Amino acid sequence: MFVIVLIASFAALSIIVAIFLAKRVTNIPIDGGASNEEEGKRLKFIHKTIADGAMSFLKQEYKVMAIFIIVFSVIIAVLIDDPHTENLIEGIPTAVAFAFGCLISILAGFIGMKSATAGNVRTAAAAKTSISKAFNIALDSGAVMGFALVGLAIFGLLIVYLSLSNIYPDINNHVLMEVMAGFGLGGSSIALFARVGGGIFTKAADVGADLVGKVEAGIPEDDPRNPAVIADNVGDNVGDVAGMGADLFGSCAESTCAAMVIGAVAFAASLSGSLYPILISAIGVPVSLVTMFFVKVKTEEDVASALKRMLIISTVLMAIAMYFVTRWAVPENFEIGGKPFTSLGVYWCLLSGLIAGLIIGVITEFYTSHDFSPVRNVARASETGAATNIIAGLALGYYSTAIPIIAIIISIAIPFYFAGMYGVAIAALGMLGTLIISLTIDGYGPVSDNAGGIAEMTGLGEDIRNRTDVLDAAGNTTAAIGKGYAIGSAILTSLALFAAFLTRADLLLIEKQGVGVLENINLLDPLVLTGLFVGAMLPFLFSAMTMEAVGKAAMEMIEEVRRQFKAIPGIMEGTATPDYNQCIAISTQAALKKTIAPAALIILTPLGVGFLFGIQALAGVLAGSLVCGGVLAIASSNSGGAWDNAKKYIEKGNLGGKGTETHKAAVVGDTVGDPFKDTSGPSLNILLKLQAILSLVFVPFFVNWGGILVW
Amino acid sequence: MFVIVLIASFAALSIIVAIFLAKRVTNIPIDGGASNEEEGKRLKFIHKTIADGAMSFLKQEYKVMAIFIIVFSVIIAVLIDDPHTENLIEGIPTAVAFAFGCLISILAGFIGMKSATAGNVRTAAAAKTSISKAFNIALDSGAVMGFALVGLAIFGLLIVYLSLSNIYPDINNHVLMEVMAGFGLGGSSIALFARVGGGIFTKAADVGADLVGKVEAGIPEDDPRNPAVIADNVGDNVGDVAGMGADLFGSCAESTCAAMVIGAVAFAASLSGSLYPILISAIGVPVSLVTMFFVKVKTEEDVASALKRMLIISTVLMAIAMYFVTRWAVPENFEIGGKPFTSLGVYWCLLSGLIAGLIIGVITEFYTSHDFSPVRNVARASETGAATNIIAGLALGYYSTAIPIIAIIISIAIPFYFAGMYGVAIAALGMLGTLIISLTIDGYGPVSDNAGGIAEMTGLGEDIRNRTDVLDAAGNTTAAIGKGYAIGSAILTSLALFAAFLTRADLLLIEKQGVGVLENINLLDPLVLTGLFVGAMLPFLFSAMTMEAVGKAAMEMIEEVRRQFKAIPGIMEGTATPDYNQCIAISTQAALKKTIAPAALIILTPLGVGFLFGIQALAGVLAGSLVCGGVLAIASSNSGGAWDNAKKYIEKGNLGGKGTETHKAAVVGDTVGDPFKDTSGPSLNILLKLQAILSLVFVPFFVNWGGILVW
Repeated sequence: MFVIVLIASFAALSIIVAIFLAKRVTNIPIDGGASNEEEGKRLKFIHKTIADGAMSFLKQEYKVMAIFIIVFSVIIAVLIDDPHTENLIEGIPTAVAFAFGCLISILAGFIGMKSATAGNVRTAAAAKTSISKAFNIALDSGAVMGFALVGLAIFGLLIVYLSLSNIYPDINNHVLMEVMAGFGLGGSSIALFARVGGGIFTKAADVGADLVGKVEAGIPEDDPRNPAVIADNVGDNVGDVAGMGADLFGSCAESTCAAMVIGAVAFAASLSGSLYPILISAIGVPVSLVTMFFVKVKTEEDVASALKRMLIISTVLMAIAMYFVTRWAVPENFEIGGKPFTSLGVYWCLLSGLIAGLIIGVITEFYTSHDFSPVRNVARASETGAATNIIAGLALGYYSTAIPIIAIIISIAIPFYFAGMYGVAIAALGMLGTLIISLTIDGYGPVSDNAGGIAEMTGLGEDIRNRTDVLDAAGNTTAAIGKGYAIGSAILTSLALFAAFLTRADLLLIEKQGVGVLENINLLDPLVLTGLFVGAMLPFLFSAMTMEAVGKAAMEMIEEVRRQFKAIPGIMEGTATPDYNQCIAISTQAALKKTIAPAALIILTPLGVGFLFGIQALAGVLAGSLVCGGVLAIASSNSGGAWDNAKKYIEKGNLGGKGTETHKAAVVGDTVGDPFKDTSGPSLNILLKLQAILSLVFVPFFVNWGGILVW
Repeated sequence: MFVIVLIASFAALSIIVAIFLAKRVTNIPIDGGASNEEEGKRLKFIHKTIADGAMSFLKQEYKVMAIFIIVFSVIIAVLIDDPHTENLIEGIPTAVAFAFGCLISILAGFIGMKSATAGNVRTAAAAKTSISKAFNIALDSGAVMGFALVGLAIFGLLIVYLSLSNIYPDINNHVLMEVMAGFGLGGSSIALFARVGGGIFTKAADVGADLVGKVEAGIPEDDPRNPAVIADNVGDNVGDVAGMGADLFGSCAESTCAAMVIGAVAFAASLSGSLYPILISAIGVPVSLVTMFFVKVKTEEDVASALKRMLIISTVLMAIAMYFVTRWAVPENFEIGGKPFTSLGVYWCLLSGLIAGLIIGVITEFYTSHDFSPVRNVARASETGAATNIIAGLALGYYSTAIPIIAIIISIAIPFYFAGMYGVAIAALGMLGTLIISLTIDGYGPVSDNAGGIAEMTGLGEDIRNRTDVLDAAGNTTAAIGKGYAIGSAILTSLALFAAFLTRADLLLIEKQGVGVLENINLLDPLVLTGLFVGAMLPFLFSAMTMEAVGKAAMEMIEEVRRQFKAIPGIMEGTATPDYNQCIAISTQAALKKTIAPAALIILTPLGVGFLFGIQALAGVLAGSLVCGGVLAIASSNSGGAWDNAKKYIEKGNLGGKGTETHKAAVVGDTVGDPFKDTSGPSLNILLKLQAILSLVFVPFFVNWGGILVW
């Protein structure tokens, strides 16, 4: 019982911290730092337009989500129940867990966005006073999401576990864990909308705003005369805050479920062992809280190092704390699949994930920051034009896959040695051990970015803008690191889910027909082999869909901006206000409509393959998607980040600076990179995880009905 | 014996046809169609410069190849011999077969290039008389390579087989086939140099020539004032003729070896069954000869349809002929791995490969020809700039992977059903059944392309240039189809080799330790799983290397062209001749030096993984590379083709035509596409096949010494 109390307390602590920080941000008056009433009004107006835009998008998205949740809950309830046996427990509870997971994920995203839109304007205003004040507000706003999200995730998982074990006291531990996976599925389903929809929203606005504003009309970025500029700012919140949050919420919930499913049989008798995966996230709460106290920023130079220090401190604290927690919570010796493991081994698994996360982060920074040679080479390639810039950026992205993949391989091999597939799930959780801090920094980024935009739009002046630019630049680097984490954890999470799927299918098949499936996922089996090909092709098809969605939506946006420039007199002179809402509406519509096809692809493929061709073929698809999608996600994300920073490097005055042909070439790369790094790349995380958790949740269906074409 | 006589006769026929066609081309005087002596001189000069440039590249490449062949032969001879058993037969004969395969492949490439450089100038001159004459010369030049290459491949395989079975009359059939695989390895090793080196050569020249000539200096393509223009033309021969030839020679030799290894035990008692894989290529000779008689071109409109008709006629004839040949040659009933199959089943395997090839070709055309909507959408995306053009082109490439992968899956599933992995190897041979015709058309393309360049450079006039443009345009479409074939056959060939590798490893392991490996290539095995990740990452890393090589070499080229424009007075007025050879030397150096790293990567990875981590890990690597590399190759090749044709579509006067901003944006896409479609994309074919055949050839080494880190 102590472990339950401990987890619940930390979850509560996390939520209390989130509330406290949120209050601290919102208690600051929006126009607090304004020099005069006019400036205050302008700050309030911009804040309101962004916040309202974000809310209007969310409201429309919630409608779509509501329909999806209801329909899919029914599908789960119907398909998962097994008519052949009396084991009628699974369908409805899984559906309920799923709906609950959706709601918690939505709530976490909502809080994150509320907090970000409250923080951005206050950061801009505070930048008038001091960099340290502005930094603190931006960080607090990010931390609200971090603590709220993890607190909610832990509570959610705990509630599902406790409800199930109380309502069905005789439930088999592995059936219980399987039902819990529904919660993870809910988290990832919402992430699908948030990541893909949010990614399309933000990049349609960004690309559209840039191409007409910067390139055609020659007005600066974030200029209030650009009708798409607010949509762009809304997009930062929608895509980077809510999208990233939902993505990582999914990773956290899913890798917890995966670990619990794989460990279900082994830890049936040990409550602390059973709940150890949740405990990892819970321990992250005090660790992150302590870390937050270490952060102090006095001058501009401190900002970047402060953020990185947070990552390192939290990693170290987590590594120390988890040694004792693991030794206490996990039984000294246990068995999975007939192999003996130890609690110390489990700790090594966790540690390898934690360290692999850090390595991936560092490498991502190396490849995407203009402090290092790769990005500078891309910038230099711009001197011979856009084409060489694009070739160099793509090559950089491809190159950058090598070391992260090796880090991931090591964080598979070590855990496998120490605790089999359970170890891999623990490594995934280890990588997410510093989740609150990662989320804090991830949230900090768009808040600072937005603050800069608001400073520009409200005309706070050059020096304020420079200050917010320092905040933003530091955020950009850490955003790249955050993306690396997100991909790395998505790969490990999917792998853990994949293992959980096969473990569970094996158990059910042995129950049903005496022969399992674990020994039959052979590479030379035609079902596995052809599945691999389909799986490898899916990430490309999915990326094509999301990239095309951005391209098309950006074109609509361009036409609307051009129309407004013509139709609204005085817009260029600054005497008339553009119709910001029309641009927000275009991004909203695009985000909602164009999510349907890619969403259908990644939901229907695993269900269809499992139903038509059975578990072996599905295993092939999952493995193919996992390896190919993982690599493609890293490449896309890093190419995009490198193009972005190559442009910024030139804008800092290098290689001729702004306005040169070199700069123009770099802007092309940056624009190509936008959908890469913020839409198709991160959406691949969802592709990997959602396919895997769908397979896990629908295992009973596949076991009973799957493979009708190969019988 | 009859089957040997039959194969030998067809091989001889093939070579006689090649000699006859070569004579027919070279008997035409180079300056035959020239209006005056000056024009004749100019034609001869350009011809000589291109032909000498190609030869100078080949000579330097031969030196590198000679060293490689010697060193690698020694490695094979030493590593493959098994000191633990008395089975000392394999090492040296395999090394000899390897060296022989290298030499035959080099010879085939040499003939192809000789013929292409002889044909291009004569095609240009003949275009002055009539389109039909020009078409015939271009086609004949291509057919020389087609017939010569297939004839040599068949002879080579037959000689290796007969020598081995006569020198070692007691040799086990499967050891014999394993030794034969050395021949395939030789073919693919040369393809590595030809494809990667040739691809770097041609695109460094092309990109360099375009960026300075077209973009900076504003002179047209193929303008003789551009110092890199001859290098560009040499590159067409080096990359598109010799590269494609060596690539397909490799596919043909390797899939034959793969089929013979897999069928070795089953057909030990049937000579015609054993040699059936070679017989397939041999039957292609009369089929292609008959097809050639059907081709007549009278007007410009006939050209494109004539080429496509050739593909269809040869496919139909092959399908009919092979029905009878298969029923005769393959035993009515046979067993592989304990499963019963029939000769009719084998025919279905062949047919499915043949048809899948055609489907892939058609789909490739749909995605890369500007007659259809995908390319037109890319062209339209250029209206909003280079960035949207790039996004649209990349998305198109990603989309275009879906149907070819499904076609490949079907051509795996059907053969698997009818004849297991042997069937897959036969399907690969089926896809290559129309190899002579494919090669003819592949060779025709660069000859026509060069003819256009020569017409421009010698100032033959607008109407002649238009005529060669018609020939070239038809060649471009079929080149895209040819690339589709090449990738498709590379995937099936690698898969067949992969199966042969595991079949052979299984046999040897059972011999050695009583336990095979076929049942242990499980997706959840950590070695297989981590191998998959490495394999999936390799194509990206390899593409990055080749793309970067092109980018860097192009920069050197750009600097040299700029230097010449400044240093040589009168160059722009046409009164001074640029130093063409300097540009050829730059491309040559780049091609030789920058091939080393990617070559080392794909040779050392399978050897290193097999040695350090053993056969299971290697199987994972091969499978990962196969699925991920196959998909990436299709995407790269089609994106590149689409950008090229989107630009051509605009140049035909659509969307504003040449000189507009839209056109400039499309030129960026075309330039990015150059290394995609002609370097990194096609080089992936080699990555797939070479890794797989290396694994097959080195099986004895891996069985005896492999996996030292996991023992």
